[in-house]
Amino acid sequence: MKKTAFEKSIDPASQTLLQKAENEGIETAWDRYEQQLPQCSFGQLGVCCRNCNMGPCRIDPFGEGTEKGVCGATADIIVARNLLRMIAAGAAAHSDHARDAVLTFKKMSEGEAGSYKIKDEAKLFSLASEYGIPAEGKSREEVAVELANAMLLEFGKQNGPVLCTKRAPGVRLRLWSELGIEPRGIDREIVECMHRTHIGVDNNATHILLQGLRTGISDGWGGSMIATDVQDILFGTPEPKKSTVNLGVLSLEKVNLIVHGHEPILSEMIVEAAENPELLELAKEKGASGINVVGICCTGNETLMRHGTPIAGNFLQQELAVITGAVEAMVVDVQCIMPSLGGLTGCYHTKFISTSPKADFPGTVRMEFHEEKAYETAKEIVRAAVENFPNRNREKVSIPEEKQECMAGFSVEAILNALGGSPDPLIEAIAGGAVKGIGAVVGCNNVKVQHNYGHVNLVKELIKNNVLVVTTGCNAIACAEAGLLVPEAAVLAGEGLKGICEALGIPPVLHMGSCVDISRILVLASAIANRMGVDISDLPAAGAAPEWMSEKAVSIGVYVVSSGIYTVLGTIPPVLGSQEVTALLTKGLDSVVGASFAVEPDPFKAAKMMLEHIDKKRKALGLK
Amino acid sequence: MKKTAFEKSIDPASQTLLQKAENEGIETAWDRYEQQLPQCSFGQLGVCCRNCNMGPCRIDPFGEGTEKGVCGATADIIVARNLLRMIAAGAAAHSDHARDAVLTFKKMSEGEAGSYKIKDEAKLFSLASEYGIPAEGKSREEVAVELANAMLLEFGKQNGPVLCTKRAPGVRLRLWSELGIEPRGIDREIVECMHRTHIGVDNNATHILLQGLRTGISDGWGGSMIATDVQDILFGTPEPKKSTVNLGVLSLEKVNLIVHGHEPILSEMIVEAAENPELLELAKEKGASGINVVGICCTGNETLMRHGTPIAGNFLQQELAVITGAVEAMVVDVQCIMPSLGGLTGCYHTKFISTSPKADFPGTVRMEFHEEKAYETAKEIVRAAVENFPNRNREKVSIPEEKQECMAGFSVEAILNALGGSPDPLIEAIAGGAVKGIGAVVGCNNVKVQHNYGHVNLVKELIKNNVLVVTTGCNAIACAEAGLLVPEAAVLAGEGLKGICEALGIPPVLHMGSCVDISRILVLASAIANRMGVDISDLPAAGAAPEWMSEKAVSIGVYVVSSGIYTVLGTIPPVLGSQEVTALLTKGLDSVVGASFAVEPDPFKAAKMMLEHIDKKRKALGLK
Repeated sequence: MKKTAFEKSIDPASQTLLQKAENEGIETAWDRYEQQLPQCSFGQLGVCCRNCNMGPCRIDPFGEGTEKGVCGATADIIVARNLLRMIAAGAAAHSDHARDAVLTFKKMSEGEAGSYKIKDEAKLFSLASEYGIPAEGKSREEVAVELANAMLLEFGKQNGPVLCTKRAPGVRLRLWSELGIEPRGIDREIVECMHRTHIGVDNNATHILLQGLRTGISDGWGGSMIATDVQDILFGTPEPKKSTVNLGVLSLEKVNLIVHGHEPILSEMIVEAAENPELLELAKEKGASGINVVGICCTGNETLMRHGTPIAGNFLQQELAVITGAVEAMVVDVQCIMPSLGGLTGCYHTKFISTSPKADFPGTVRMEFHEEKAYETAKEIVRAAVENFPNRNREKVSIPEEKQECMAGFSVEAILNALGGSPDPLIEAIAGGAVKGIGAVVGCNNVKVQHNYGHVNLVKELIKNNVLVVTTGCNAIACAEAGLLVPEAAVLAGEGLKGICEALGIPPVLHMGSCVDISRILVLASAIANRMGVDISDLPAAGAAPEWMSEKAVSIGVYVVSSGIYTVLGTIPPVLGSQEVTALLTKGLDSVVGASFAVEPDPFKAAKMMLEHIDKKRKALGLK
Repeated sequence: MKKTAFEKSIDPASQTLLQKAENEGIETAWDRYEQQLPQCSFGQLGVCCRNCNMGPCRIDPFGEGTEKGVCGATADIIVARNLLRMIAAGAAAHSDHARDAVLTFKKMSEGEAGSYKIKDEAKLFSLASEYGIPAEGKSREEVAVELANAMLLEFGKQNGPVLCTKRAPGVRLRLWSELGIEPRGIDREIVECMHRTHIGVDNNATHILLQGLRTGISDGWGGSMIATDVQDILFGTPEPKKSTVNLGVLSLEKVNLIVHGHEPILSEMIVEAAENPELLELAKEKGASGINVVGICCTGNETLMRHGTPIAGNFLQQELAVITGAVEAMVVDVQCIMPSLGGLTGCYHTKFISTSPKADFPGTVRMEFHEEKAYETAKEIVRAAVENFPNRNREKVSIPEEKQECMAGFSVEAILNALGGSPDPLIEAIAGGAVKGIGAVVGCNNVKVQHNYGHVNLVKELIKNNVLVVTTGCNAIACAEAGLLVPEAAVLAGEGLKGICEALGIPPVLHMGSCVDISRILVLASAIANRMGVDISDLPAAGAAPEWMSEKAVSIGVYVVSSGIYTVLGTIPPVLGSQEVTALLTKGLDSVVGASFAVEPDPFKAAKMMLEHIDKKRKALGLK
């Protein structure tokens, strides 16, 4: 039974374009999902093993058929190993992104990437001090080189601790150390995951999961945190700013260039190049009234946070943007980019431009991007988009009307600033009960659930119940589209939260950035916990990923829980084939790291679970 | 249809124990394989993707159903990504093993691992010189510390080249550099593989495979090579020595302790502890006439190469050894250890002792091993085995008679030594036609094919046709069991090879060590190529892995082919679902790295293909 556009997404703009796609016979992710049904149950339950060539092996989940793989691995072992590989891939994605950001920073510091400069000098010096680099008598470039080298060491070091873990409360650090899950080096943990999951290595689910926690921590408090830090130095620490979101941000008159993926390294240059007078002149020659750079996914979040660049949509809107017929160039870097864009852009005039040396796609124009000539490449890309404008087929163009104001840019620095320089007002509001707690809602979209339904409804329920929400990634975009990222959305909040938002002029849902910026949430949680003299696991806080789909989200979930934050997943992870792993994740972890996972697809029920958890934590702290 | 013991293995000792297993109702890997049949065809063809939670997705290999995953990934993309993850896991296994060896070496140098010492001082100084470490005026421990640190850097470095790649011929190095596949750092390449295979990153099969080659090279010329080097320093560079193999090496009168896995770090200590007078005395008290340490898999190869310790069998004989009922302790470290051993040892009196902090198994006694008190732990383990001797149930004991003499220990140094100090006599023999070429035959066992059938028959065909065979791993053990590793086996060789073997007193099949020691084969190939002034791909040489099953074997295959050696696989890799990937591997790579893969399960046909390849290379060199 084919789903209608209304069943596929709650977003009217998306519904319109899904209808257009159907009318034009254009295939989308939802169609491909329907074609895949029924999906393999062994895979869904996590009991399929392909880790050696004696397989593939499958375990009968009902216990009536095969109980072991050829090597003797049980469902528990297979599920745990598969999960560890997901964590490794997710941590690798974040950390490899961070590595590239640090390498760009290093080249900039050494004068080899002239397009970049130090935008946040204060953060440079504060990080240098944190990394133990004396700054006296040195130029800022000299300090930058030393910091870049010190950051690079975090990836390759063989013995921990990973430096930024020190930002966690002391009690949490000691717990990790006692459990033996303090990461030793970012890359080392990922490599060890791959070793342990090789045939005949680690065959104990608990043992395997502990390595998963360690690897997750090396992402959240390592790779992701470094990515955020170094991007702030290079491109500026975000401050609150207004912008617009949803597919309606595409322009009928202007050249539309979409930046999509996850890294700001290229998109920062594109935003700059789009203001180049020569290219603006060219745009006019080609009949356009200007150049409209908009974002999708986390590349979009990065430029939104720092420049107020509009966002056209989240993960499941990437195809829909092309289907408007109004996109001159879809420019991509890495992660969450559908290879379907190749065939799809071929149905329109859109140029699909891939730029990363480590990511190519079918049907792309390759314009490989290297820091040494960043601005030049960005200009070429913008020029390619501009020159494509006359090819736009106006008969195929249909841009939805929907666009929504939003406020983004809530870095930890910005939040503390809004609070007057310290977390105390927030802590007081929590203590007094005006704010019940903090909800961190993040993660992807997933065709298995209605687009944005889980995101928006979960967040609405939380703020209605006076839970201040911090958000990143695709959830942030979903919330923005639903109008939750404006101060006026305070009317949707409970009385207490509403009062706080109105007093501070902030939305009840704070957009903290891209997926790597979940590290900002960890820093914020630490700041609050440290100020209160408790562990993160003592805070009235809970996390959720209502529509997650990527392996990055698995790593994120793991480091958030390892940091002490109870997390509710909205789509089911492939672990249910193992009672042991499922029990560990949903119960056992509680006694290990003071937090665990829950799975609840219904956002209203998920909100209730988070609220109950927050209430429990409030009680434990002696708060009403 | 259940296979008979004769169909399962060509080895009489194994057949006997397979029959015993059946009589006793004991389950083995072959039974579990039969229970798994039919295996999932999607997995076998490589067209199943579980890299995100919108899946699992499957492509219809007949092109009649789904052609794309939810994200739009085609069969080509999915197969390539799955293959890259296999390479990453294999490279990780070897390299993480190497890391541990280097860390042990470092602790030893710093005086923190007193059980170890420098066994090969010449190799220490020669490596120090290769790593650019001046030795003048330093103690050997000081040199060792510096070398250990320099080796550790190879894992974490962010920019290449990986140092030992310089051992490759200059022309090969330049080729890698031109192709952009010179590895930058061992861990970095593995992490990038995991990043690239994350949803929405690399979606171009060729692009993905090139990263696979780079990662493979970082294993063969990086991790594996470092493992070999550092183990030679610590435990001695192997020299030819005689020993015995097959299940008949287990003793009726002595305490049988099996060391199984891949690392010599622990087994070296166990070999030493088994000679401890106090423990020998205890053995006597318990009614045993001594302590019999024997090996399985590559831990066995390591101790065989350096101490002449007997080997009980290869991968598929690990369960059979326990089934003799005569094993007091099965002591394991990492890799290729069946978790089934837990249940199986429970059916006998055997203690299943796991020792690695990164590998646990069901049903084990944990005796975690740390270098700081290596000998003490080894003694405890041996004591546990000895104390278990009285529990042996003599009614259940049945040790096959089969055991076979063998000669092992052919490091590159030993081979050059046997040749009088230079590769020239071998090159002359090749030029003159007495030796047609060199065959490198390696790899695992796999229940999908008859145990040892491919190994033994392929090697016999090669030597019959005057191809000198170098071997490692499970192939080496199979050849040993078949009596091919003795100088007397020269009678099975063609006239030319026979003459050479007889003149030098060597077997026609040279046992070069464990799986990481395939790096020795690379060094040997380089030495010959350099001396001849050609590239490795010009040599009359070919590789084969007749019964491969592990992801390590995939990484090995990739680095052997990337080094220019044509390689024939005996079991089918999960790539046939992609015409593009299959064509790249079997043809396309030829024009890229001057070598490619072939797949041929029949060892006689495989030998013919290798011989044809060798003939072609001889012709190109102007040899008859």
